[in-house]
Amino acid sequence: CLSLLHQPTIFGYRRCLIVMSIDRQYDTIARYIDANKGKFIERLRDAVAIPSVSADPTHRKDVVKMIDWAKEKLESLGASTELIPLGRQKLPDGKLLDLPPLLYAILGNDPSKKTVLIYGHLDVQPANKADGWNTEPFELTEKNGKLYGRGSTDDKGPIMGWINAIEAFRGSKINIPVNIKFCFEGMEESGSVGLEEALKAHQKEWLSDVDFTCISDNYWLGPSKPCITYGLRGVCYYSIEVIGSKQDLHSGTFGGTVYEPLADVIWMMSQLTDIDGSILIDGINDLVAGVTVDERKLYDTIDFDQADYQASIGAKKLLRPSKPELLMNRWRYPSLSLHGIEGAFSGTGAKTVIPAKVIGKFSIRLVPNMETTKVDELVIEYLNKIWKQRGSPNEYRAFSNHSGRYWLSDYKHPHYQCGARATKRVYGVEPDYVRDGGSIPITITFEELTGNNVMLLPMGAGDDMAHSQNEKMNVRNYIEGTKMLAAYLLELGGI
Amino acid sequence: CLSLLHQPTIFGYRRCLIVMSIDRQYDTIARYIDANKGKFIERLRDAVAIPSVSADPTHRKDVVKMIDWAKEKLESLGASTELIPLGRQKLPDGKLLDLPPLLYAILGNDPSKKTVLIYGHLDVQPANKADGWNTEPFELTEKNGKLYGRGSTDDKGPIMGWINAIEAFRGSKINIPVNIKFCFEGMEESGSVGLEEALKAHQKEWLSDVDFTCISDNYWLGPSKPCITYGLRGVCYYSIEVIGSKQDLHSGTFGGTVYEPLADVIWMMSQLTDIDGSILIDGINDLVAGVTVDERKLYDTIDFDQADYQASIGAKKLLRPSKPELLMNRWRYPSLSLHGIEGAFSGTGAKTVIPAKVIGKFSIRLVPNMETTKVDELVIEYLNKIWKQRGSPNEYRAFSNHSGRYWLSDYKHPHYQCGARATKRVYGVEPDYVRDGGSIPITITFEELTGNNVMLLPMGAGDDMAHSQNEKMNVRNYIEGTKMLAAYLLELGGI
Repeated sequence: CLSLLHQPTIFGYRRCLIVMSIDRQYDTIARYIDANKGKFIERLRDAVAIPSVSADPTHRKDVVKMIDWAKEKLESLGASTELIPLGRQKLPDGKLLDLPPLLYAILGNDPSKKTVLIYGHLDVQPANKADGWNTEPFELTEKNGKLYGRGSTDDKGPIMGWINAIEAFRGSKINIPVNIKFCFEGMEESGSVGLEEALKAHQKEWLSDVDFTCISDNYWLGPSKPCITYGLRGVCYYSIEVIGSKQDLHSGTFGGTVYEPLADVIWMMSQLTDIDGSILIDGINDLVAGVTVDERKLYDTIDFDQADYQASIGAKKLLRPSKPELLMNRWRYPSLSLHGIEGAFSGTGAKTVIPAKVIGKFSIRLVPNMETTKVDELVIEYLNKIWKQRGSPNEYRAFSNHSGRYWLSDYKHPHYQCGARATKRVYGVEPDYVRDGGSIPITITFEELTGNNVMLLPMGAGDDMAHSQNEKMNVRNYIEGTKMLAAYLLELGGI
Repeated sequence: CLSLLHQPTIFGYRRCLIVMSIDRQYDTIARYIDANKGKFIERLRDAVAIPSVSADPTHRKDVVKMIDWAKEKLESLGASTELIPLGRQKLPDGKLLDLPPLLYAILGNDPSKKTVLIYGHLDVQPANKADGWNTEPFELTEKNGKLYGRGSTDDKGPIMGWINAIEAFRGSKINIPVNIKFCFEGMEESGSVGLEEALKAHQKEWLSDVDFTCISDNYWLGPSKPCITYGLRGVCYYSIEVIGSKQDLHSGTFGGTVYEPLADVIWMMSQLTDIDGSILIDGINDLVAGVTVDERKLYDTIDFDQADYQASIGAKKLLRPSKPELLMNRWRYPSLSLHGIEGAFSGTGAKTVIPAKVIGKFSIRLVPNMETTKVDELVIEYLNKIWKQRGSPNEYRAFSNHSGRYWLSDYKHPHYQCGARATKRVYGVEPDYVRDGGSIPITITFEELTGNNVMLLPMGAGDDMAHSQNEKMNVRNYIEGTKMLAAYLLELGGI
């Protein structure tokens, strides 16, 4: 802190004292975390063992169990908690299913302190060993410094990180310099059903005193260098439904006499992108904000290794040759992905069916300034136009499944500087300021409802394979990440 | 028989006596069948209740159960039976599974009589109520003169028809004028694995004395007029496999950086047909035999109602406007059907995945003179050509899954005339001589291995929806069809 002592100002002196105090407190907390590494890994193991798959109604009870589990943990750390019922969800077959409750928790209510809201989700993506997992997805398995298991990085690892950090404060008898509000949900992987409505309903009582929101639910850019995320792409998801007959037909008996709906849908889907991934939908690219000179420069210095990225995916070639182009394609340009076709034959083997009703599915990732309503309008217009070109007599309907806006924040905000200092303290390097290609629609909701800054502070690494087979969290990311979250809370006290 | 008495020839007189004898015998048998209608429907109910789905390894025991069930029934009617082990089947996951045995049965071995071989299959297509069945697929349900249930028409109904007919002969104390060999398999819906090899191995001992083969495993052209089938299309089934990454990727995090394999496969599949169903594969259409003037005339007189056909499918429009064109498209021209994509997202809802490995599946129905090896060559060549045009860096492989030749017989053969007389006796009309768009590869095998005529004598109606939801057999087709099969056996005695 010597450098600051050269500045004979009250601000410099105060800042120096704060930093000295944070230094000492952090060291104590970090020692506690190191000493409890084994216990913290067991905590993650317990969380992963609960198969809280929100997309699968048969696992709904496990989502609820997971929320109860987290509630108890937070209570044992001194938080007061509340379960917010979110009503019921209508399944595709028309049945109603109780939504898992939302978990609110409050730790500290000192009016002299700032209040940070921490969001996370306790549900996970589906996972089956048969899909290509090397280990049981719901049994946390440590191998070569990696903790494999569904939810290890998305998002149970980071939530355990917060819980571990709070425990470390208590265990080290150090006061947390901010009030904390936790908001943990159980439907994130299924569109956060009910969350936005609940937050809106509680805007005045629950969100009015929130000064910052911190979300740890994304990943570093690469495998080793930390980053802070200030932008996200949005997403618009679409379906093209074509019906050709009352029921599936035998391709021998009927082939050659009917207009096959699958051929229609496949042709429609072939008209959406070209080989380079460019979107062919009229007007879409005109919505994209231009690249400024400053923004263009930003990409050059970001620590990102294309070869590593390519190797981690196992791709033969990437869509863009240079680092800046590839990063821009990932973050600041839209992309259109084809996901699949519902209703067609999708099993192994060789079924000779002409499917009667097929639904082609694709989505577009949105960036500034692509507003969802405008994108919806252009997409449906284009689909209708090419359907007309197709000239098929079959029944056709194109519709939007859901949409979420893009998000772009200011990484020079003091809140971001707290995150940056915490990161540098633990990892010894300045974090990169990056965006993420994925969508966390709730980020925007928090920004709008609190009227204050939201920051994404990732814990996991870029090769963690969230949503995929063999999802993992590095032991390093989990333990040092816990320290980083604790350091961030310390830094918030000096804001 | 008066008309024949005007012909003062020995042939005419003999034929007259035969006809008179057949008349009497048939009446007795038909009365027996009418009297036992309820019992025969119960028999079909028992057969449908065994979910002998050959494609599903968990149902393999039910296929074996079904074969044992048929074996007992044939034995109780006086047949000697034998179960032929067919070895094991390699599943896609590499596991080995015992094939169901082949059921051989012999009824009568009088060297002065001709021998007819009757083929059928006891396995069925998969069926789940959730797929859109109005009734439980494995519970035969009678409604408005229709018997709904998986296998009711394909092929348990016809097999019960043969068993009923034999019972009627015995119950009426009338000798069957031919020796009968039954060959019933349990893998027809899964490519008849092991059947051809077994038949080839037993060609000399088992097939050498077979004079005719009769197969009742297809359907009338329309809902009400009987027909006899003298031609079938073949089928070549293909897969286009494209791999882009080691595992599925999140479309937010990775969209815009990778060449998506699903976009490749969908583009490839979009290049196979045009909107009119024309096949775009170079050279394929050149293989098709031209239409002769005689053949062209045949289509005009066939009883076929396009409007009924269209209504039964529920299609908005058919691929060809006139009856002859539509029938030719169905029987004597090739058709290419897209079936689906393995590995892509196929569920309900909206999953934002970039699938890592996808396999597009399609098949072509073959007609004279499209030889399978030539078709394979042209298809793979074309796929390789357009893959090159596509210019994707992903891993690509196109391959044939299986193939079966087309078949064309002579409907003026005396064996066909027996089928025709039996049909006219029961239904009072001359059957139409038709082809079928589907493929029964075993037809050709029997023709080649016996060196004798094969006839397809359908029992079910054209709207029976084999392979589809709500498969059914009309009570009329089942009961009158049983009479027709009995009448056919009577006719064979006079050949």
